[in-house]
Amino acid sequence: MQLPGPTNIPDAVLRAIAEPTIDHRGEQFASILRSVLRDLRPLFGTVLPVAVFPGSGTGGWEAALVNTLSPGDRVLLLETGFFAAGWAEHARRLGLEVEVVETGWRGPADPGALRAALVADTGAEIKAVLVVHNETSTGTTSDIGALRAAIDEVGHEALLLVDAVSSLGSMPVRHDEWRADVTITASQKGLMLPPGLALLAVSDRARAAGESACLPRAYWDWVPMLDAAETGSTPYTPATNLIVGLRTALDRLAGEGLPAVFARHRRLADAVRAAAMHWELELVCADPAAMSDSVTAFLLPPDVPDPGVRRALLERFGVTFGGGLGRLAGRCLRVGHLGDIDEMMIVGALTALELGLPEFMPIRPGGVDAAIAALGGAKCC
Amino acid sequence: MQLPGPTNIPDAVLRAIAEPTIDHRGEQFASILRSVLRDLRPLFGTVLPVAVFPGSGTGGWEAALVNTLSPGDRVLLLETGFFAAGWAEHARRLGLEVEVVETGWRGPADPGALRAALVADTGAEIKAVLVVHNETSTGTTSDIGALRAAIDEVGHEALLLVDAVSSLGSMPVRHDEWRADVTITASQKGLMLPPGLALLAVSDRARAAGESACLPRAYWDWVPMLDAAETGSTPYTPATNLIVGLRTALDRLAGEGLPAVFARHRRLADAVRAAAMHWELELVCADPAAMSDSVTAFLLPPDVPDPGVRRALLERFGVTFGGGLGRLAGRCLRVGHLGDIDEMMIVGALTALELGLPEFMPIRPGGVDAAIAALGGAKCC
Amino acid sequence: MQLPGPTNIPDAVLRAIAEPTIDHRGEQFASILRSVLRDLRPLFGTVLPVAVFPGSGTGGWEAALVNTLSPGDRVLLLETGFFAAGWAEHARRLGLEVEVVETGWRGPADPGALRAALVADTGAEIKAVLVVHNETSTGTTSDIGALRAAIDEVGHEALLLVDAVSSLGSMPVRHDEWRADVTITASQKGLMLPPGLALLAVSDRARAAGESACLPRAYWDWVPMLDAAETGSTPYTPATNLIVGLRTALDRLAGEGLPAVFARHRRLADAVRAAAMHWELELVCADPAAMSDSVTAFLLPPDVPDPGVRRALLERFGVTFGGGLGRLAGRCLRVGHLGDIDEMMIVGALTALELGLPEFMPIRPGGVDAAIAALGGAKCC
Amino acid sequence: MQLPGPTNIPDAVLRAIAEPTIDHRGEQFASILRSVLRDLRPLFGTVLPVAVFPGSGTGGWEAALVNTLSPGDRVLLLETGFFAAGWAEHARRLGLEVEVVETGWRGPADPGALRAALVADTGAEIKAVLVVHNETSTGTTSDIGALRAAIDEVGHEALLLVDAVSSLGSMPVRHDEWRADVTITASQKGLMLPPGLALLAVSDRARAAGESACLPRAYWDWVPMLDAAETGSTPYTPATNLIVGLRTALDRLAGEGLPAVFARHRRLADAVRAAAMHWELELVCADPAAMSDSVTAFLLPPDVPDPGVRRALLERFGVTFGGGLGRLAGRCLRVGHLGDIDEMMIVGALTALELGLPEFMPIRPGGVDAAIAALGGAKCC
Repeated sequence: MQLPGPTNIPDAVLRAIAEPTIDHRGEQFASILRSVLRDLRPLFGTVLPVAVFPGSGTGGWEAALVNTLSPGDRVLLLETGFFAAGWAEHARRLGLEVEVVETGWRGPADPGALRAALVADTGAEIKAVLVVHNETSTGTTSDIGALRAAIDEVGHEALLLVDAVSSLGSMPVRHDEWRADVTITASQKGLMLPPGLALLAVSDRARAAGESACLPRAYWDWVPMLDAAETGSTPYTPATNLIVGLRTALDRLAGEGLPAVFARHRRLADAVRAAAMHWELELVCADPAAMSDSVTAFLLPPDVPDPGVRRALLERFGVTFGGGLGRLAGRCLRVGHLGDIDEMMIVGALTALELGLPEFMPIRPGGVDAAIAALGGAKCC
Repeated sequence: MQLPGPTNIPDAVLRAIAEPTIDHRGEQFASILRSVLRDLRPLFGTVLPVAVFPGSGTGGWEAALVNTLSPGDRVLLLETGFFAAGWAEHARRLGLEVEVVETGWRGPADPGALRAALVADTGAEIKAVLVVHNETSTGTTSDIGALRAAIDEVGHEALLLVDAVSSLGSMPVRHDEWRADVTITASQKGLMLPPGLALLAVSDRARAAGESACLPRAYWDWVPMLDAAETGSTPYTPATNLIVGLRTALDRLAGEGLPAVFARHRRLADAVRAAAMHWELELVCADPAAMSDSVTAFLLPPDVPDPGVRRALLERFGVTFGGGLGRLAGRCLRVGHLGDIDEMMIVGALTALELGLPEFMPIRPGGVDAAIAALGGAKCC
Repeated sequence: MQLPGPTNIPDAVLRAIAEPTIDHRGEQFASILRSVLRDLRPLFGTVLPVAVFPGSGTGGWEAALVNTLSPGDRVLLLETGFFAAGWAEHARRLGLEVEVVETGWRGPADPGALRAALVADTGAEIKAVLVVHNETSTGTTSDIGALRAAIDEVGHEALLLVDAVSSLGSMPVRHDEWRADVTITASQKGLMLPPGLALLAVSDRARAAGESACLPRAYWDWVPMLDAAETGSTPYTPATNLIVGLRTALDRLAGEGLPAVFARHRRLADAVRAAAMHWELELVCADPAAMSDSVTAFLLPPDVPDPGVRRALLERFGVTFGGGLGRLAGRCLRVGHLGDIDEMMIVGALTALELGLPEFMPIRPGGVDAAIAALGGAKCC
Repeated sequence: MQLPGPTNIPDAVLRAIAEPTIDHRGEQFASILRSVLRDLRPLFGTVLPVAVFPGSGTGGWEAALVNTLSPGDRVLLLETGFFAAGWAEHARRLGLEVEVVETGWRGPADPGALRAALVADTGAEIKAVLVVHNETSTGTTSDIGALRAAIDEVGHEALLLVDAVSSLGSMPVRHDEWRADVTITASQKGLMLPPGLALLAVSDRARAAGESACLPRAYWDWVPMLDAAETGSTPYTPATNLIVGLRTALDRLAGEGLPAVFARHRRLADAVRAAAMHWELELVCADPAAMSDSVTAFLLPPDVPDPGVRRALLERFGVTFGGGLGRLAGRCLRVGHLGDIDEMMIVGALTALELGLPEFMPIRPGGVDAAIAALGGAKCC
């Protein structure tokens, strides 16, 4: 599987998940939960408590909104792709008014456009800015620091809500440094688990906003979930086995060391990009500075039938690639390079493309070779 | 572990959960999801679609409420114990007005009290009746058919929402026959999985109510989840590995046959009750006709220190029993006898009690023997 | 499964066995192998090296013989049951002359008979005495210390070869104290692993005997296997995954502590015997002092059809009991109580008997109760 | 791991091995054993019964010898490498007289040399010819059909014993067509299991030879093991969990289809050889027609320090390659391409070499590209 997520799960993590379920009210689980909530913080780049809900990343979106906003509140969404658009729709369905800053789906969120939108908001009606750190549908990373600077520059009070679902654990997330108010992730990407957990870091300002926010909330109320860092217990039954698996996944990340984890993702992404460039395939992300280290999306030629390409790759090589989503449906091929993955696996995936794509489109042979060169080998001779 | 849940998980189910995560957008997963959504129906006693959300049973409560009700709506809650009280609180936090029918925590919901409350509701303000089928905190099963009859008798239009978290899969649930509007369960009890799924059956009347209900809903919107029976896909990432595990769990239940599954739970419950009677221990449930087939709660003598008892049983025998919850905290001991459990396991658990309780309270020896007699053996001589 | 072996295997051990196979020539495996070979020694009661072969316990018999004896050598076999008789036959097939001391199959090996046989061996032709420490087919433990004393008393030079397959890990084995020359065991009993390893402790005298012994030997040559304690490598591919599982199993035994492990086996055996006495079932082992702590064999009435009894117990309760072997075929029922087993499991197994046997034979009800009393509970009232 | 064995084990096989051990005397196991013994036959290319012993491949050597030969018998060994030499030594230790036909370690067994040796055996003293079908230490496959023809040509009566440890399951083995008398394999190569089983196919002529052969035999006696095809039971405890795992492994091989399995191994081997040729690395096997489809051995330059190379590859890429054995120790690097392996994995392994080798020796960059071209891709442009 070479999806942008769910990612490959290490055997040790799968084994941990398959251990008999333990009592979620017992001391053993409390101790694991506390340790997990502590060790997640460096991944978020925060020293503050983190909340973990049973649910998907979409639940993380919902938790971020219902804990900080009131019905009818206006939010500003920087639309960088399918998932950003989905979050906008999610907010609308919760009764929020959503103003969308269109950035196209081929580049990162634009700090200038954000600044302009905030400047135009003379009535300070925008209560929150919503942005996807790493847009999985396009393979584009937005510069959250630059967006934060844009907000600061105009002195706007809006909260900054960040979807880091496909970046956290694979590239640096700096919740505190960015002064993000909520940073959201999910279990099935850089955390190398099956889907089933929504995780959030929350600023003090966001917690304070929650006190007056009045969207109905019960399941997604983060107060008791954030308290779990102390209490070791959750307000309702947690996804016990995933929490136990998360303990193992965090141990692996710590064993490798976060800087090494991030460097590995950068190196693998560079190799994929080198192959793409060699093959003369255009990426969805047109901005070289914003190309993602966790997922790469290739544009397919207009006449190439997808899902035919992906089906052929699956049948011939047993590899599942991601397809286009939303307005990119049928128009691109996405390669995940995040989680438990190494040089050899990424070269293997590129090999499937080099062997399989020519049936559908001309590519310049040698992309794998270019990837290997990018990985730093073949220096001699 | 002899908890009322999470229950013991069959090895085959744990192994299924630990299979590498598959693509939730691929045909293999779609096929599994459709089959699971089909085969869950007999467990709910419905021919209608069932929805499965990533989340806990508490999420099931929320889904039932936000899909059918509007802010400020009045609901009637039959308070039979800790979990019923929790659902009332959950409803309040979502902005509903909750009228509680106190039934004490030692018996089932009272159809007469329900009738009286509905009769008193001359303005037809009560939009829904909330009841817990099997109250896990007290070991009491309410007669949903009789409650339905009480509603019918007075011709009230309220929806009937049923929490079947600790009954479904262990005793008959008859969603269609009861004309329940929503029936809720979770993965970690009779379905023999780890926690992480909320599952609901929904009547046509409930779906129709959803069209005008205006509590904000997005994550818990059941429309696309119910459509998954057809589409094989979910609106956001599902808890893939649990769904795959559910496939195996449903196969096991089908292999044994639901009537045999229910008969087994009845037989084991009878054995536990026989032991309790022999030991001269009082049950929390004072109504013999309402004693639960999936969990039994024993009252502890006033002077017996819990969690001391449970801690001693855990240390000496490695068995985790449930403790009292809410107003029963420290006052009872709960034994689960649901899920993947047989005669020998239940006798083993009773043995731990027979060996361990005397340190704390007098019991009449021979309870295990009484349980064995109840199990139908020792007929000869 | 309530067999005398293979025993129940702890989940953690099964998981260890299922880890991907590692390179048996690499440093990681060498380190595990050395540690396993070190930590096995206390179980054998030896400070000397231990050898571990890929193979079954029968391979252990062969290794003991081919490493110490020459074609035509005479050995003395104390026949206490089916497995002792099997070893005699094995020795004959290797070309040894076997003198059998019949002790009947209802008691332990008799030191007096051994002494008499050795006294009669005026030509010192007997090169080795073969004895089964714990005869799995009859549930009888022989007193190896007393047998050693008998040999010493007459000053005979024969080697003492001990089969400890179903005792090691469940009851004390004292290779050095007994001055045993070879002590043999296998993986699937007290070591709580699947079958596939033969393990031996070897005295210096046995090693010396090996230098002149001339039975052909290659696979079973213990010299390089005993050297593995130092080298961390074996002369041919080892059963890698079982060795890795053995590491986990040894950790569990060490965690509980050998004295506690042995006390647990004694306690569970006492409970089984108490049930048998109460049921008025006769044991195969007629000598109360020699009843085994790891397996108990009940005689069936002459008119009771086995395997009918065992088949009924399997179908009704899913429990597999052992049947009679050799001349006891169809005449007894064997209950294993060794390995990863606790009070509740043994009471569960006895419950299956109390519920299932009356269909076939009269038993006095209350055996489980007697077992529980023996386990030390129900002291009050 | 990219060893010539143990090979990568499919997850499904690992999970099967980790299922709780079942009763090896019960009907469930008997049924599995019979089916396994039936479905192994096509892999051996035989319609005759196959024997499966708990033990390693070395045990298979021993079984082949002790079941067919007598002390002092002369055998002819075609020495093609380290494992062939090991078998010769094994035979000597069992008391056989071994005549070695030296073929060097850089090519296959030579039919001409075999013929000459047999012609010289005017007294018909050679009772068996021993040959390794696929020499794992050199990556060379001998042509057993041609060797058979050489024996026939001179009308010699010697038995033909074939070690197919690293060929069976990866390339065609034709026991019946070759009129091999014994064909030996082990679990940890093409059968994709952990080590722990020795497996043999036996001709009628070999069985007949066994009746007069008088090397001592008991554990390795094949008569009752061959009978297991009918009886479903073994003379002593089998390696239960590996047999259960073998059931799953055979299902996988059947699912892919043997012709497809063999074609895959050929295709992957061709890719490895294309890379080697491109890198200008010499193979140990100097005869292109005899290069193995399951393992390739590269010669290292004289001045390149191994195990330094392998250690560097392990540390940097986490890949374990095989080293040189015997007289090739430190002089070659062996790449396994057998078992559960596909295009992407093999390209991944080659990538590790292309990236890692330049630190130690000059290679011509582009070997991975050459391998990809060999795999049939990059046809366009």
